[in-house]
Amino acid sequence: MSPAELTKTDAVTVRRKTERADYRRESANAILDEALVAHVGFVVDGQPFVIPMAFSRDNDRLILHGSVASRLLRTLDQGVPVCVTVTLLDAIVLARSQFHTSMNYRSVVVVGIARAVKDPDDKRAAMKAMVEHVAPGRTKEAREPTDKELSQITVVEIPIDTASVKARTEGVLDDADDLALPIWAGVVPVRTVFEEPIAEPDLRAGVERPRSVTPYQRPNGSR
Amino acid sequence: MSPAELTKTDAVTVRRKTERADYRRESANAILDEALVAHVGFVVDGQPFVIPMAFSRDNDRLILHGSVASRLLRTLDQGVPVCVTVTLLDAIVLARSQFHTSMNYRSVVVVGIARAVKDPDDKRAAMKAMVEHVAPGRTKEAREPTDKELSQITVVEIPIDTASVKARTEGVLDDADDLALPIWAGVVPVRTVFEEPIAEPDLRAGVERPRSVTPYQRPNGSR
Repeated sequence: MSPAELTKTDAVTVRRKTERADYRRESANAILDEALVAHVGFVVDGQPFVIPMAFSRDNDRLILHGSVASRLLRTLDQGVPVCVTVTLLDAIVLARSQFHTSMNYRSVVVVGIARAVKDPDDKRAAMKAMVEHVAPGRTKEAREPTDKELSQITVVEIPIDTASVKARTEGVLDDADDLALPIWAGVVPVRTVFEEPIAEPDLRAGVERPRSVTPYQRPNGSR
Repeated sequence: MSPAELTKTDAVTVRRKTERADYRRESANAILDEALVAHVGFVVDGQPFVIPMAFSRDNDRLILHGSVASRLLRTLDQGVPVCVTVTLLDAIVLARSQFHTSMNYRSVVVVGIARAVKDPDDKRAAMKAMVEHVAPGRTKEAREPTDKELSQITVVEIPIDTASVKARTEGVLDDADDLALPIWAGVVPVRTVFEEPIAEPDLRAGVERPRSVTPYQRPNGSR
């Protein structure tokens, strides 16, 4: 069993608006499971890089993967410090004052050391987690990876341990003096919508739309 | 006039799937103008950090802002190397093979030195760009920032110069051997939807919903 509380080091402690911070594993997991894109930060010769990547949560680790030929993955698999940040945007917040224009969001910041997953069985399990993260149920439908395919990709893992959650979930926060102004204020909810699937034109005759896209759904997708 | 081509240094050159790369300013601007959240990477004592932030494009610079008290902004305003990455997710791509599971996206990576905007007029212009980015037209409706409010925030700028665009916009890319498999393949389009605005309960009587949210729209928002 992993601890219910994440490890709150100096690096991940939220300093501003600390009432918006959360260090519970279940809070981090809910955001990680809903999101599709991670922004992965690493350093090369003092220069920070931030690259958008598909990812998955496999129990208490984050999984990233890419081509064996990728400079990014070759950097990441060397046991380097990384920061993986995942953000969901929930609303635009429009106050009576321009100063209090804001957005509601939920985000997770994970810092740690990325390490290559080399054990073939573990690599296969990590790849399965990747596919299930992108499309829950899909590993029961699509062709499994061959050993040759697995050898063409690098898989890295980062423990979900030193991490924090930050979220803004409020309405408009105007100054008291501004409340009487004849100015509209409110919130515009933002939602990610998965539209009707578009089948490839060259599907084999008689192939039906499978369960994973009937409809396509994510954890917490009904928000 | 800024050059139509971005500066393609080693840091921003796309190495993998180079046919997906683009170094035109107009391509970068279109993505930056549509997106709402940037992931900002910087380094403290060798540790990378990636923080989600509101941002704006003001002509050929990116603008970030935050509280004067923020550790992040205090770091960023010291002329440090940053990487600002903006990503839009367009589709889930489900191939017949798990190996070719993918996503369609458009992303911009900007590297450069962040510098504090100190001139009061320029700071005011940058704040205006921030508000207009979040809600086009809103600066004509909401109360302008006071000098005191402006003094409470730090604004930093990063030139949009050394940057690249990468996008995947294709359908399914299955191996020829897999095309005859009795497995569904296709694309699930992903769209960001802005729902009906929710007015604050304590609006002054008679205040109508303004133009910026009737309806709320972003550049390229009809995609």
